[in-house]
Amino acid sequence: MRRILIITEYDGTPYCGWQWQHNGLSVQQVLTEAVEKTCGHKANLHGSGRTDLGVHALGQPVHFDTDCTIPAEKLREALNVNLPETVKVLQSMEVAPDFHARYSARSKTYLYKMYFARVLSPLKRLYSAQVTHKLDIKSMSLAANYLIGEHDFTSFKASGKAEKCAVRTVYDTAVYNEGEYVCFEITGSGFLHNMVRIIAGTLMEIGSGKLPPEHMQRVLDAKDRTAAGKTAPPQGLYLKKVDYGFNSQSVQKK
Amino acid sequence: MRRILIITEYDGTPYCGWQWQHNGLSVQQVLTEAVEKTCGHKANLHGSGRTDLGVHALGQPVHFDTDCTIPAEKLREALNVNLPETVKVLQSMEVAPDFHARYSARSKTYLYKMYFARVLSPLKRLYSAQVTHKLDIKSMSLAANYLIGEHDFTSFKASGKAEKCAVRTVYDTAVYNEGEYVCFEITGSGFLHNMVRIIAGTLMEIGSGKLPPEHMQRVLDAKDRTAAGKTAPPQGLYLKKVDYGFNSQSVQKK
Repeated sequence: MRRILIITEYDGTPYCGWQWQHNGLSVQQVLTEAVEKTCGHKANLHGSGRTDLGVHALGQPVHFDTDCTIPAEKLREALNVNLPETVKVLQSMEVAPDFHARYSARSKTYLYKMYFARVLSPLKRLYSAQVTHKLDIKSMSLAANYLIGEHDFTSFKASGKAEKCAVRTVYDTAVYNEGEYVCFEITGSGFLHNMVRIIAGTLMEIGSGKLPPEHMQRVLDAKDRTAAGKTAPPQGLYLKKVDYGFNSQSVQKK
Repeated sequence: MRRILIITEYDGTPYCGWQWQHNGLSVQQVLTEAVEKTCGHKANLHGSGRTDLGVHALGQPVHFDTDCTIPAEKLREALNVNLPETVKVLQSMEVAPDFHARYSARSKTYLYKMYFARVLSPLKRLYSAQVTHKLDIKSMSLAANYLIGEHDFTSFKASGKAEKCAVRTVYDTAVYNEGEYVCFEITGSGFLHNMVRIIAGTLMEIGSGKLPPEHMQRVLDAKDRTAAGKTAPPQGLYLKKVDYGFNSQSVQKK
C-alpha cells in the first residue's frame, strides 16, 4: 500500500464545494470516482480542507492510499484522463505513510480577486468579485497588515459556527494589482469558516474609503462578527497553496 | 426616432456566436429581446461584426433605432436589468442617424490570450487557450511585426470562405505578458473570417521555437492557407474594441 499526494486545481462553479454531500456534486466525489476508475478500487480521499460552493482551488492537496501498480508520477496523467475539464491533477507523488493532507499542513495561502466596475462583468463574474467603488490599494495593504500575528479572529468567524477556539496565526498578507484585478493574499496557520471572505469584505469597505485602515484593528479588538464587513462572495476566493514545511520532492517516500 | 449606440461585453461560452441562428441562442437574439422588453418595440440590432461560437467581446458596439422615451444614457441600466449575467451593456449613447456600428468603423482591435501548462487549467479553460510549450515572447513579437501594413492575407483566411478580396491593413500588433498569460493584440482595418485565430495559431508555433520569426513573412508571401499554423481555439479570442475615429462622446448627436 502506498500513500499518494496529488495537487489539484478546480473550478468551483459547478460544484457544491469540496466536501461530499447528498444533495449536490462535490469535487471530492468527482476525484474519488476518478481514483476508483484509474486504480481499480475505492479509496478515501483526504483534502487539506474544505472549500465552499463556488470557491476555486489553484492548489488543493489531497491524499489517498492505493495498491495499484501505476507509478506515482504517472498517476497525474492517468487520473486526468478520467477527470472532467473542471478538475485536474497538477502533480502526483508518493509520500510517507504518516503524511496527511490536512494534519501535516504548516500553512495555507488563500487568494481573493476583485475588480472595480459599474456594470457586472460577464467575463469576470465567475472568477472574481465586483466592487462598485474604486479601491485604494495602499489603505487595503495597511489594513491587512494588522492581521499579521497571532490573534483571536472571532470577528471574522461565520456567525452560528461552533468552532471553539478562534485563535489563529496569520504569517503574511499582500494586496496588489494584477491587470484589472485587485488581489488580496493571506497566509496563515489555518482559517475559520468564512474567515478569508469576511476579511475580504472588510478590506473592500476600507479600500472604498468608507473606513480608515485602522478600522481593521478595531474589528479584531471587538471580537464580534457584526464589527466586520460583509462576507465577500465565494467566486472571488481561491485556495492557492498549502505548505508542508518542505518541497513536494522531499515529502516523497525514500 | 433616435439612433442608439451601445457598447456590450459578453461571455461567448453559452452562445452560438453573435449572429442570429435557428439552431442556437445567439448574443444578437438575447440583446434584441432585451431591447424589445426595455423599449417596448422590436428593433433591428447591428453589431460591428460577427463573433464565432465561444469567442468573447470586451467591447462589441451595436446600434439600433428607437422612439422610446428613456434617455440614451439611462438605457445602459434599463437594458442591463433585462439581460442575463453573460451579456451586459457598458455604455449607451445617442449617435447621428447616419452612424453605423459596422460601416462607420475605422479599425478593430482583437485580443488573444494563451497560457503555457502541461495540464489543461480548469480555471483558465473558458477564457484562454492552452499551449503545451513555453512561449518566447520576443520571437512572437518580431513575427507579429511582419503583419503590420497592407497585405494580402489569403494565407490567414479560413479555407472555403468566399471573401473575394483578402487585402487588409494591420495598423498595430503587440505581444506581452499579463500574469500567467501571453497576450497578443492586433488592430486593423478589418479582418477575414478566422484571420486572428490563424495568426494566433501561427504565433504559437513560432513562440514554441519550432519556426523562426521570419516564418511569418514566408506565410504572408505564400498566399496559401496551408502555409500558416492551425486555427487557434475560439475561447482565447476577444473583440476588444472598435474605433470610430472619434471619442464616444463626439459621436453623440448634437
